[in-house]
Amino acid sequence: MDHPSVIRPAVHASYHRDKMGKTTLFQSSRLLVGLNAFEPGQEHALHAHAGMDKVYQVIEGEGVFLLEGRELPMHAGDLLVAPEGVPHGVRNTGTERLLVLAILAPGPR
Amino acid sequence: MDHPSVIRPAVHASYHRDKMGKTTLFQSSRLLVGLNAFEPGQEHALHAHAGMDKVYQVIEGEGVFLLEGRELPMHAGDLLVAPEGVPHGVRNTGTERLLVLAILAPGPR
Repeated sequence: MDHPSVIRPAVHASYHRDKMGKTTLFQSSRLLVGLNAFEPGQEHALHAHAGMDKVYQVIEGEGVFLLEGRELPMHAGDLLVAPEGVPHGVRNTGTERLLVLAILAPGPR
Repeated sequence: MDHPSVIRPAVHASYHRDKMGKTTLFQSSRLLVGLNAFEPGQEHALHAHAGMDKVYQVIEGEGVFLLEGRELPMHAGDLLVAPEGVPHGVRNTGTERLLVLAILAPGPR
């Protein structure tokens, strides 16, 4: 993908029957911009990134952000920041597909 | 603002009559997550960040991304990545307010 160019994220979504689909839109040493695509019932289990901050933004669909001991309902447009070391995840609890923009800084090696 | 928590970006937008309004949603050494808010006709002129990648995502409204020698129409949901050193900007060419999520990595000092 050439940058800078105007990206409509949903066009690049990749869904899989077995598990969450992942797409990389941009990657550098500073930043990873990707998509996490969830069929109904799929999840990305609670996990944490040492030394990396994570931003989620809900592109379409509904579900919950998974945090330690909590689940927070999410809707299209919602944003969540998981600072480095803070466990986080996503579960599609809806009946439609769920697409989430996932940004990590710095980019994983 | 406490993190992680669910953020509805538009709630935090700050518009100004004189110039683009800015809001910081999260800041660390790794990452800045902010909002740029444009009244009709306002712009953030072409500029570049040495050593920092920028991500824009349009929350609401319409306008153009400014690039060197080009203007690219933008609509709600569109995303653009300006890798480090690449000049970029935003102009609200619409009749409504324009709100853009602006992410920089690493965070400015």
